[in-house]
Amino acid sequence: MSSTRGRFISLEGGEGVGKSTQVARLAAALRARGLEVVETREPGGSPGAEAIRTLLMEGTAGRWTPETEALLFAAARADHVARTIRPALERGAWVVSDRFLDSSLAYQGGADGLGAEAIRTLHAIGSGGLLPDRTILLAMPLHEASNREWVRDAGELDRFGARGADYHARVAQTFAALAGDPANGPARYRTVGALGDVAVVTDRLIDAVADLL
Amino acid sequence: MSSTRGRFISLEGGEGVGKSTQVARLAAALRARGLEVVETREPGGSPGAEAIRTLLMEGTAGRWTPETEALLFAAARADHVARTIRPALERGAWVVSDRFLDSSLAYQGGADGLGAEAIRTLHAIGSGGLLPDRTILLAMPLHEASNREWVRDAGELDRFGARGADYHARVAQTFAALAGDPANGPARYRTVGALGDVAVVTDRLIDAVADLL
Repeated sequence: MSSTRGRFISLEGGEGVGKSTQVARLAAALRARGLEVVETREPGGSPGAEAIRTLLMEGTAGRWTPETEALLFAAARADHVARTIRPALERGAWVVSDRFLDSSLAYQGGADGLGAEAIRTLHAIGSGGLLPDRTILLAMPLHEASNREWVRDAGELDRFGARGADYHARVAQTFAALAGDPANGPARYRTVGALGDVAVVTDRLIDAVADLL
Repeated sequence: MSSTRGRFISLEGGEGVGKSTQVARLAAALRARGLEVVETREPGGSPGAEAIRTLLMEGTAGRWTPETEALLFAAARADHVARTIRPALERGAWVVSDRFLDSSLAYQGGADGLGAEAIRTLHAIGSGGLLPDRTILLAMPLHEASNREWVRDAGELDRFGARGADYHARVAQTFAALAGDPANGPARYRTVGALGDVAVVTDRLIDAVADLL
């Protein structure tokens, strides 16, 4: 890579589309090309943000209001950006994150109805508005993702996985709208089909970041 | 009280000026007048906000960036407002809080340099911009407050108490500016001298809320 600054990739999508598997596989494929790659996730990705993650993922579905939840996600993201993402990018590493800002836009902004402007304002204050160089939406029909959920022990579902089908439909709708909105920058967003053999999906992801290599 | 809505009082000021003692004494004096009074504090005042408080008060002074800290305070405040303050006010109770928004304006906004606008924006998003009916700044020369700090075991100092004299001077300066700024509403802000016998200070506080009774 000729640039002195790394690249920042986020994988987005609802529950059960295979994000964490694909983050690991995409990171491995990039490392095989000789790059330093930091695999990370949200909420979390730094010691402080992982502590905030515990507050966000545990407890009852109604533990926090949408407003409090949005502020906690923005706080975790601010720590993640300051302690993990910016230092990695500054030393020239690639960062591949399982979720980032667009998840807050889809969940709290869209499904919970806070709106995109409030979420973007929190991100501007907390993280200087840092955006990924590429955001890949892993897309899958909702009933396929739901079927995958059933594979998991229902007891493992966190505060978000445990929400109803209507909620997850609103999340998916907002993700699709974000990916199709020119205001998000066609250069930033790519939609990749998440159905099919895992290796085939990884190949699609590599294609989707090839221009950044 | 003829109103169907309670009154919301916040006590503000730096470390060691006697806020928690005076919150308890003011609440007792109001209860003696037949009012229901909810004594509370920030960060905290509701189960969720107390969990966030632990993240804010424990650990090293540099554990969080000012931006993350401001978001965590706003998240704790949003929970406190939604779960404790608004329900109390709606049933006609008085709320007396040890710190509220103005502490964020003084610490993160002023001493840490984030500015008042960012703090007010977070408060608008998280808590609908709820303001106290009366905010009382307990004022004391900084060296007097510092002397009081020495009474406490230094090991008990939290992430804020442990900061240097320059930091606490900036906090005090910002509090004084807030109290003197007509934009904050002369009807909301009162400055009360915190030096002297505790009972005398309580009498001053009662005078400072008498018009709300």
